[in-house]
Amino acid sequence: MDENQNTYSLEFTVRDYECDLQGVVNNANYQHYLEHARHEFLVERGISFADLHEAGIDLIVTRVEIEYKFPLRSRDRFVVKLNLKREGHVRLVFEQEILRVPDGKLIVKARVTGAAVNSEGRPVKPDEIVRQLGL
Amino acid sequence: MDENQNTYSLEFTVRDYECDLQGVVNNANYQHYLEHARHEFLVERGISFADLHEAGIDLIVTRVEIEYKFPLRSRDRFVVKLNLKREGHVRLVFEQEILRVPDGKLIVKARVTGAAVNSEGRPVKPDEIVRQLGL
Amino acid sequence: MDENQNTYSLEFTVRDYECDLQGVVNNANYQHYLEHARHEFLVERGISFADLHEAGIDLIVTRVEIEYKFPLRSRDRFVVKLNLKREGHVRLVFEQEILRVPDGKLIVKARVTGAAVNSEGRPVKPDEIVRQLGL
Amino acid sequence: MDENQNTYSLEFTVRDYECDLQGVVNNANYQHYLEHARHEFLVERGISFADLHEAGIDLIVTRVEIEYKFPLRSRDRFVVKLNLKREGHVRLVFEQEILRVPDGKLIVKARVTGAAVNSEGRPVKPDEIVRQLGL
Repeated sequence: MDENQNTYSLEFTVRDYECDLQGVVNNANYQHYLEHARHEFLVERGISFADLHEAGIDLIVTRVEIEYKFPLRSRDRFVVKLNLKREGHVRLVFEQEILRVPDGKLIVKARVTGAAVNSEGRPVKPDEIVRQLGL
Repeated sequence: MDENQNTYSLEFTVRDYECDLQGVVNNANYQHYLEHARHEFLVERGISFADLHEAGIDLIVTRVEIEYKFPLRSRDRFVVKLNLKREGHVRLVFEQEILRVPDGKLIVKARVTGAAVNSEGRPVKPDEIVRQLGL
Repeated sequence: MDENQNTYSLEFTVRDYECDLQGVVNNANYQHYLEHARHEFLVERGISFADLHEAGIDLIVTRVEIEYKFPLRSRDRFVVKLNLKREGHVRLVFEQEILRVPDGKLIVKARVTGAAVNSEGRPVKPDEIVRQLGL
Repeated sequence: MDENQNTYSLEFTVRDYECDLQGVVNNANYQHYLEHARHEFLVERGISFADLHEAGIDLIVTRVEIEYKFPLRSRDRFVVKLNLKREGHVRLVFEQEILRVPDGKLIVKARVTGAAVNSEGRPVKPDEIVRQLGL
């Protein structure tokens, strides 16, 4: 992943309760990690979900693709990386990777598509967001 | 637990993702089961969290005591039982048990104290709720 | 989805704790629902994760694609449907849908790819599983 | 809480997915926070759940009491503090508090009782653990 103004990285440690019967992180929990990194990135860039909501706009996820390359285990450290791109008029695409720390082993590769919708659930051009993110 | 108008029972099955490294249901998930049974009970008795919220009242949990007697494992069936009592002017107390099905083995014994609070978070007499529940 | 011997359907109800700040089911929880339906299907078809594990084989998910069409809200009823296919020598593909009950509204469409791996994590032909499922 | 060799403190930030419909952290998630702090403390003191398990001993929680004083909201920072004491021959008691950062507001007060059990689930004297922790 190229480093640029729309890349971001956040470090985590696996907590025991995130692991399941097989001794590895449950598949759904990777989505939690990916989501938390996206939200931290947006907040750091000045995007407020609450302010957007009051202005009648919600950011939602419309599609995720996740490739599970290698499992994380209890107490593993890892980083979630992301790179945000605009796609077409209304879509925001987050390319995300989870890499184990410190050896950089690729754990998960994901592509998460988001959209801005109005209070009726219809897609709107995310102009304000795009401007704020400088996309 | 005596059966009366303020008792209620709901059956569940353990899902694999609710189990942890040790092969048993993670301790926090029993609180989810207990909460879901309380909410289903209240809704069945005509209590609407949404309507209460619009009327400026929220039902919150102020205290839980949980004794873990025996663990549930993947795919176990169980019932969550409850018995609701009023305590003092402002407290509602749920006595709850989780029993494995079909053998009735006691899994968890819990006592959950709730209160009705106004929008400033101050306790209010839950008169309307008490009346609706016939306590 | 065509009904055949490799289709399966399981009904759920949304629990309050599965919803997030936005008042809808959190995206990661749909993965829990999809997983639980797959596991129930496999167990019903006689596939035992424990027996397979003792025989040195684990079933893992290698890829998920999920389209989020419409959100579920607190207390919504829904079914998770699945259709299992073999793909190539080593992949099992679950096509899954989540439909709201009773109106059949499409909530989620997913494609989940699994593989059988040995204790070193290398893919193995899932012959025994394929035979048991009659694929 | 007095600071001594058996006290420990760990800082967290609330993640959006840990909040529920009411906009605050779901009650069960505080139990996750409390558990993660206990496990980190034990591991830091040289206690290995895996090694204990191989030696035929498991550490389990037998009872929790949690007082919910004030809710945490999205993105709040907080510390989980603990103080470990021995009680009788076989019980370990963790007194725990969750305090918001930076204002030190008391969020949760908890008392968690644990025991060491053998592979039949019977309590055993946690001598080795007690020695390692210097209790």
